[in-house]
Amino acid sequence: MTSSLARVREAGPLVQCITNTVVQNFTANALLAMGAAPAMTDIVGEAGIFAGIADALLINLGTPTPEQRAAAVEAARAANEASTPWVLDPVAVGALPLRTELARELVALGPTAIRGNASEIAVLAGSGAGGRGMEASEDIDAAAAVALARESGAIVAVSGPQDLITDGRRVLRVDNGDELLTKVTGGGCTLGAVVAAFLSVERSLESVAEAHAYYGAAAEVAAEGAHGPGSFAVALIDALSSDLPATLLRIREEPLP
Amino acid sequence: MTSSLARVREAGPLVQCITNTVVQNFTANALLAMGAAPAMTDIVGEAGIFAGIADALLINLGTPTPEQRAAAVEAARAANEASTPWVLDPVAVGALPLRTELARELVALGPTAIRGNASEIAVLAGSGAGGRGMEASEDIDAAAAVALARESGAIVAVSGPQDLITDGRRVLRVDNGDELLTKVTGGGCTLGAVVAAFLSVERSLESVAEAHAYYGAAAEVAAEGAHGPGSFAVALIDALSSDLPATLLRIREEPLP
Amino acid sequence: MTSSLARVREAGPLVQCITNTVVQNFTANALLAMGAAPAMTDIVGEAGIFAGIADALLINLGTPTPEQRAAAVEAARAANEASTPWVLDPVAVGALPLRTELARELVALGPTAIRGNASEIAVLAGSGAGGRGMEASEDIDAAAAVALARESGAIVAVSGPQDLITDGRRVLRVDNGDELLTKVTGGGCTLGAVVAAFLSVERSLESVAEAHAYYGAAAEVAAEGAHGPGSFAVALIDALSSDLPATLLRIREEPLP
Repeated sequence: MTSSLARVREAGPLVQCITNTVVQNFTANALLAMGAAPAMTDIVGEAGIFAGIADALLINLGTPTPEQRAAAVEAARAANEASTPWVLDPVAVGALPLRTELARELVALGPTAIRGNASEIAVLAGSGAGGRGMEASEDIDAAAAVALARESGAIVAVSGPQDLITDGRRVLRVDNGDELLTKVTGGGCTLGAVVAAFLSVERSLESVAEAHAYYGAAAEVAAEGAHGPGSFAVALIDALSSDLPATLLRIREEPLP
Repeated sequence: MTSSLARVREAGPLVQCITNTVVQNFTANALLAMGAAPAMTDIVGEAGIFAGIADALLINLGTPTPEQRAAAVEAARAANEASTPWVLDPVAVGALPLRTELARELVALGPTAIRGNASEIAVLAGSGAGGRGMEASEDIDAAAAVALARESGAIVAVSGPQDLITDGRRVLRVDNGDELLTKVTGGGCTLGAVVAAFLSVERSLESVAEAHAYYGAAAEVAAEGAHGPGSFAVALIDALSSDLPATLLRIREEPLP
Repeated sequence: MTSSLARVREAGPLVQCITNTVVQNFTANALLAMGAAPAMTDIVGEAGIFAGIADALLINLGTPTPEQRAAAVEAARAANEASTPWVLDPVAVGALPLRTELARELVALGPTAIRGNASEIAVLAGSGAGGRGMEASEDIDAAAAVALARESGAIVAVSGPQDLITDGRRVLRVDNGDELLTKVTGGGCTLGAVVAAFLSVERSLESVAEAHAYYGAAAEVAAEGAHGPGSFAVALIDALSSDLPATLLRIREEPLP
């Protein structure tokens, strides 16, 4: 077990998730499996109160109903006031103006971390139009991620075959993961909640990288016996609850782009 | 099989669920597995009509959007008018005023049963502040549950290592269950739907206790071959659809506190 | 593999789903397993934009909140303008006036296909009152389905022990499937999304029938090793991602009623 994971398990952090209805169940089960306590408190009048109680907060823009949009802003402000770390997952920004505008508003509120795929991060960094089929080279990703981290003050994490995590000063790469993660809905969204849980015990670049490595290593273990994405998703929850040896994690530093 | 379970399977009751979006899928699958027919009819203008058609109703306050809050009250009133049994699950009342106020309003409408954990029941009984980390002794639970049952007229069920079920005159304990139920989201919420299904064939203290024992026994069977919470959840649905021998159920009466 | 399935896998169509919150997760996982890309974009202000980008659209009326109702109409109109094929699944129309009225409004907008069970199709065809327990003979189904197809211009698919698919001129029957599909929530709803994916590569009676046969054949494979509806659901996702031999599919033509 990594030191951060051990601390998450010991603390059992309460992780509030304002996330899309597609992945709420999988996200909650992943958090429970890793030893955290999920709470999908996502309505106006409760989201802010809860962000003051919770140990960490995830805001994911996958299905941003008017209620969730207002609750997200309410929760982000309250998290800031209570010094609760919070993660923004700007799902599918770019092509859809409504959530893109909301994502920019939330970035301005200062999330502790921003987690997305290359096209989403590029949109927020001002270097991409987002949407499907964007052809982002690794160099462009790194530069865009570093720029976004510097501008926003957030730790920026870009998911891909190799995850990139940067705070604008240093760049870490995580080599863990399995392609089956892209075949399960919530494969990425759930990682955002795992990052929030890790940030509750330590706010650092390393902690965000460890969250990625732990989640990716669990996916590797799960993929071993899987017969397809259905059995993989079940095995992933099992693996997240197991004591993964720290030797599975592959994190390395690379030069700034 | 227990006699109540056999009657549920024969009747195939239509169980309306106004429940949180996190556990709708798991709840629906559990009801289908046990031989009931789920319907998550939870919007204004439909919830009341449906409560008049359904054989039982669950109202769970896990993600109480404005739409669900209004639908819950509409459905509760219609259920009363049609003599449809209904269960209230006051998820996380206490710390969050909005749902706490709604829960009190619904208690006043006279649910057939109230199912929650110790802290939630204590809040409704006026003896606790709710929220996380409440240290409720078993004696306090029993007294609070009995008080709430007497005041509300509802059968009150408190989930825990040993479930407690009371109508204010008698107290039953159920010793079935497995700790993995606390590691699957909806482990408790789904039990509320199972209770509703059992109440559709018999409104009694025993029926609520049998629902708990059946669900807990299925969890015991499921835990046997599970490798973690992921495979446990899958096995629980399988177990709920199987013919569990009545000898697995452990229900006993204890004196009033 | 069938030719249509091979084309779906090659194209990886983006399938927008405005569907009920109970089955969003299962539907998304089924689409991913079969090689499509799901997007549950179901809010006002995004649904229409997305319907112009997507390769196909599903509108399912299972939990029609005000937001989803408005988004559904917005998306249907945009789909028509962009010539995006779209499928209507009129869940539980008949007993509930609100969704029944919306379903009629959507039928008038000209869906590419309508998929439902016998009672739902009968309601839209004007020959049934819908709701639970309707006793529809096969002959009535076929006549109602043909009538609805002629009136609406849509391909009409009626799910049952034998699925019936008609465009008003010809009638196809699909003999694939397994009873366990009725024991998993979203067993039918997910088929609507599969139909949408198939329509994205070919808009034809045969394509809709192949979607049914492929899904039903996957269910047959999944049922083989299943211990109940829980393990069946997992195996179904696995089977949808596998290369099912075309010899499993059982489609036959029958005379017009």
